[in-house]
Amino acid sequence: MIRIGIMGVTGYAGAELLRLLLAHPQAHVTYLASHSFEGKQMSSVYPGFAGISLPTLETVDAEAAAEKCDVVFTALPHGVSGEVIPALYKKGVAVIDLSGDFRYDDPEVYKTWYGFEHSSPELLKESVYGMPELHREKIKSARLIGNPGCYTTCSILALAPLVKHRLIDVQSIVIDAKSGASGAGRGLSEQTHFCELDESMKAYGIGTHRHTSEIEQELGCLNGAPIQLSFTPHLLPIKRGILATSYAKPTSAANVDELLGLYGEFFKGEPFVTICAKGKLPELKHVVGSNRVSIGVCVDARVNRVIVVSCIDNLIKGAAGQAIQNMNIVFGLEETMGLELIPWQI
Amino acid sequence: MIRIGIMGVTGYAGAELLRLLLAHPQAHVTYLASHSFEGKQMSSVYPGFAGISLPTLETVDAEAAAEKCDVVFTALPHGVSGEVIPALYKKGVAVIDLSGDFRYDDPEVYKTWYGFEHSSPELLKESVYGMPELHREKIKSARLIGNPGCYTTCSILALAPLVKHRLIDVQSIVIDAKSGASGAGRGLSEQTHFCELDESMKAYGIGTHRHTSEIEQELGCLNGAPIQLSFTPHLLPIKRGILATSYAKPTSAANVDELLGLYGEFFKGEPFVTICAKGKLPELKHVVGSNRVSIGVCVDARVNRVIVVSCIDNLIKGAAGQAIQNMNIVFGLEETMGLELIPWQI
Amino acid sequence: MIRIGIMGVTGYAGAELLRLLLAHPQAHVTYLASHSFEGKQMSSVYPGFAGISLPTLETVDAEAAAEKCDVVFTALPHGVSGEVIPALYKKGVAVIDLSGDFRYDDPEVYKTWYGFEHSSPELLKESVYGMPELHREKIKSARLIGNPGCYTTCSILALAPLVKHRLIDVQSIVIDAKSGASGAGRGLSEQTHFCELDESMKAYGIGTHRHTSEIEQELGCLNGAPIQLSFTPHLLPIKRGILATSYAKPTSAANVDELLGLYGEFFKGEPFVTICAKGKLPELKHVVGSNRVSIGVCVDARVNRVIVVSCIDNLIKGAAGQAIQNMNIVFGLEETMGLELIPWQI
Amino acid sequence: MIRIGIMGVTGYAGAELLRLLLAHPQAHVTYLASHSFEGKQMSSVYPGFAGISLPTLETVDAEAAAEKCDVVFTALPHGVSGEVIPALYKKGVAVIDLSGDFRYDDPEVYKTWYGFEHSSPELLKESVYGMPELHREKIKSARLIGNPGCYTTCSILALAPLVKHRLIDVQSIVIDAKSGASGAGRGLSEQTHFCELDESMKAYGIGTHRHTSEIEQELGCLNGAPIQLSFTPHLLPIKRGILATSYAKPTSAANVDELLGLYGEFFKGEPFVTICAKGKLPELKHVVGSNRVSIGVCVDARVNRVIVVSCIDNLIKGAAGQAIQNMNIVFGLEETMGLELIPWQI
Repeated sequence: MIRIGIMGVTGYAGAELLRLLLAHPQAHVTYLASHSFEGKQMSSVYPGFAGISLPTLETVDAEAAAEKCDVVFTALPHGVSGEVIPALYKKGVAVIDLSGDFRYDDPEVYKTWYGFEHSSPELLKESVYGMPELHREKIKSARLIGNPGCYTTCSILALAPLVKHRLIDVQSIVIDAKSGASGAGRGLSEQTHFCELDESMKAYGIGTHRHTSEIEQELGCLNGAPIQLSFTPHLLPIKRGILATSYAKPTSAANVDELLGLYGEFFKGEPFVTICAKGKLPELKHVVGSNRVSIGVCVDARVNRVIVVSCIDNLIKGAAGQAIQNMNIVFGLEETMGLELIPWQI
Repeated sequence: MIRIGIMGVTGYAGAELLRLLLAHPQAHVTYLASHSFEGKQMSSVYPGFAGISLPTLETVDAEAAAEKCDVVFTALPHGVSGEVIPALYKKGVAVIDLSGDFRYDDPEVYKTWYGFEHSSPELLKESVYGMPELHREKIKSARLIGNPGCYTTCSILALAPLVKHRLIDVQSIVIDAKSGASGAGRGLSEQTHFCELDESMKAYGIGTHRHTSEIEQELGCLNGAPIQLSFTPHLLPIKRGILATSYAKPTSAANVDELLGLYGEFFKGEPFVTICAKGKLPELKHVVGSNRVSIGVCVDARVNRVIVVSCIDNLIKGAAGQAIQNMNIVFGLEETMGLELIPWQI
Repeated sequence: MIRIGIMGVTGYAGAELLRLLLAHPQAHVTYLASHSFEGKQMSSVYPGFAGISLPTLETVDAEAAAEKCDVVFTALPHGVSGEVIPALYKKGVAVIDLSGDFRYDDPEVYKTWYGFEHSSPELLKESVYGMPELHREKIKSARLIGNPGCYTTCSILALAPLVKHRLIDVQSIVIDAKSGASGAGRGLSEQTHFCELDESMKAYGIGTHRHTSEIEQELGCLNGAPIQLSFTPHLLPIKRGILATSYAKPTSAANVDELLGLYGEFFKGEPFVTICAKGKLPELKHVVGSNRVSIGVCVDARVNRVIVVSCIDNLIKGAAGQAIQNMNIVFGLEETMGLELIPWQI
Repeated sequence: MIRIGIMGVTGYAGAELLRLLLAHPQAHVTYLASHSFEGKQMSSVYPGFAGISLPTLETVDAEAAAEKCDVVFTALPHGVSGEVIPALYKKGVAVIDLSGDFRYDDPEVYKTWYGFEHSSPELLKESVYGMPELHREKIKSARLIGNPGCYTTCSILALAPLVKHRLIDVQSIVIDAKSGASGAGRGLSEQTHFCELDESMKAYGIGTHRHTSEIEQELGCLNGAPIQLSFTPHLLPIKRGILATSYAKPTSAANVDELLGLYGEFFKGEPFVTICAKGKLPELKHVVGSNRVSIGVCVDARVNRVIVVSCIDNLIKGAAGQAIQNMNIVFGLEETMGLELIPWQI
């Protein structure tokens, strides 16, 4: 059994991690920490955990966590993660960080998009970007994982085969992404006040959303040269799910059968990637509740565009589920362990 | 491994059964049947099952099912269940029926509420009402289970301790129940057309909902004498969940601490029943996604009433989950096997 | 033209008042005040008011308001209303208060349910309970109106004919009411955080909701003797609308045709009351967007119960619309002026 | 008073037309027709019309309509409109058609996108595309109006100033549009069954949605040369509203201040167009319930893109409201008459 700690367990990603880990056959949750609810029981914050024996919520403390855990998931705000992780790392604990702090190869990129200097740039060299479909081998030997962002996961996987094979003009990429409100977290805000969001919708952060930089880093890596793309997030009046619609001009006449073949090849053997049959498109209900990404590929020959629609559950494949997938890889477990979740569908 | 068949697997309860059984360590799904989608794959109806190896959908046929299965779940419309079950039963297959056909002790009650003669009244004597909290012992040796209705489960468990201990005037019982739209099933109807239900709500079937008769049967049994009560269902603009608010006059001055003690005692050891602490009430999000019922008890001394609020997931504890719980009992498995589901919460 | 002021215009009831008054042919909005947004434009808080010429938001000040207005709507928190209204009243301005402060005949009732002494009990004698269907004559000559609560309006109108005509046992009344989230206001709270409410539902304030006391006051008045009843509010994952299901035992055998005749008689000529035909029930979509209350009456003879289902838009008939209806009466205008709103339906 | 008929009044656009026309000071509704509900009252289909005196629903008949009406709104399916309109037109009645049948200059375009020959191509020469912001002068003297589609209205107005002034590379245009479910109409379908859409979302009709051709026609006209663009619609789990996010590459370095100035100039005096201030974006709640389009303009210099976000209420500015706006123009009334609707906001 792997001894597990979660810092920031009372946030939505943290709570989802806990929910999933409690059903994981090799996970033994030994440490839970929360800035806001220290000393309380998890069930007093989330009554759905009633009746389940869990550690009392502790204060966030690297020392205590390192003693009790083989791996610590840090689901803390960016910046805050960066403070506690070096101590954890030094103690030899494996760390899977759900913030943006350890997702970058280049501390300058972090500074540009997050607005301040990275607090431990030397650790960035140790950390691995935790997207198994792209970096499985590196993840196996990593002890510090920067778990990808939610929009990021949905966008990168949608475009990776096209970029890798130079099939699209990378300057033409437009990603129009739509997310449920859980992505905005548990903190109260006007935009997630029920009557302000229900039956409404909005775009936000046009050209400035931090996840843009992650997508550019990973696609740029596949491209072998930097990429800059247009990314627009939208807030939906639902709880879970991200749907991204990605547009690009093919470099030569695109054929949907060939593209589908290519996607099938690229993701061959991937346990959590579904490529829709020709003419089919993914919907949120096909993935929400699961660790899957579902991808549909279209060619609009009339206007010379490839359009890719991709869906994930932002709290699972976009956060907690992918984090567990990374843990499974790091600890040499079956990669799908605890993650064979069928979407809720209804 | 238990070989399992589901008839009516493409309805919402059937699909949920399949989703849950695929995660059950002792379940081996060998037969799936659907009136409407014979010859198709489940994933063509519910794309969330993509990538999972499943039997092709067959026509509903007792003979074929009996050969392939140790137990068959019938998630067919009432009346239709009644036609196929006798043949299954004769073949020695265990049957767990999710329709209303085998929930009644008395065929006259069935006739009164369903409007026609029961097609196999002799089998009603063999069938057991599948509510483990009330009939666990009988279920153990049963081969034909009438799985309880959704409103029914939520209502009976809310009031059982009060009725059993003669603490309320049974003539004063009012149950005001609210259900998500999945309870109305997958069939298209005006009332469940998105724009007709979203942001709206209604009461329906006042005084005539068939689940009333189930509640009266089971509470009457606990009471030792017939009970007639007022039951009003409402349709909510959500997918899953039932919340029932039950009102009754106590026979003597009620004390909430005593009542909570009594509920605790009544449901002692029950794996799926949560009694809320004094002053707390259940919400749908505390149970949806799980097989739990959560119950909150209040006393309004000013107006001399006991008010009990209870919540379930209508597709799990109100249908598929309870059906699996019954299967576990019938087959001598751990009762919670495959059902240790934590509510989704977010 | 009537010169109109709104104090607390940035709350949901205040904003709805403004929206409706801008379409009222005799209303001239001259003064808007907000504690939180002084100095700003209404359109900066609610962008839907963009392009409409409106007074800048001022601080809440009786003196300033009295100079500019013939009538002031106070949509302030209870307690706060009580502080500013005496000064307005002294200045001779008509006041329509949407808080609970001037809804009571007896300051002791206020104290019991609101937890502190009423600050101007002498003014309670001047104020009239602004429910035109019950108090139209008194409203005509009033200068201070306590505008009824939302749950209250929906509940009182549902039961008034039965209580007035002594057709029900008043000790048997149970009101189970369900409200959209706008009733909880614009202030941020965990319970109205999108992901906490969406797809969920809860009961709250059992036996303690302040609107209970208003319902008891008005029904008691119709009864000619005090009434105590059981009232339970529920929070729905929708924006607008209240649906109340009221239960009572008839004093003698009830006949639905007779009851419907009686309701028709009681509400004869009422412009905003719809009595559903026999066998029909109101749904939220039949009233939301309008100033209507729609009422359906059922008899469940089997269990000797009368069940009344009633619906309103909590922000219109339950707040802003009824306030305008009161203004129309006070100023001798056509009662329906500015309120001939057809429900949104879709 | 203008005598008004609506054919297809029981569809969502038809019902919304009726709701709005009942509040229009110059409208007198004299004829209502419905294929499905002939002989019934509108209030039996939409109970929200209870208590309002309305003509009984008749069969769709040009003769009868022409006798009773000065203008007929045809809210019938495409193809069906094309059959009845020639007869209406010959009788001298003004016709405002909400289907796609009379929106095209070129019958070949109609054939390409609708799949069959236009039934009265000669009438296409008489019809005017009813978008007042582009064709007000022509509308004044028209007697047959092709009322624009919902996606169309939202998309064309978003891009018209950019195309008109040659500020974008028209080959780079991508429109990602999201619509509420009322756009899919009142007919039952799996995709709009409540449990299939609620909390989900999907893209559909990629590269094939008929509204694409309308957008291309109108923008091509402004461009002075044909345009082909990428248009992707999405279905949202809400009732009303369209939000379109449009992307294009500027032909020279774009400056947001200049662009906003240009938009302000282009739409100067337009009563229903709101241009958001710099840095602000429209949300559905800013327009739903009104006849407005709200437009926000962004420049993402880093990736050299102009991004325009636009919102409308699909049933009002996207259908019924714009139809009334056209009627007002045709009949020489104040263009805003009956349309001074403030968005619902809450």
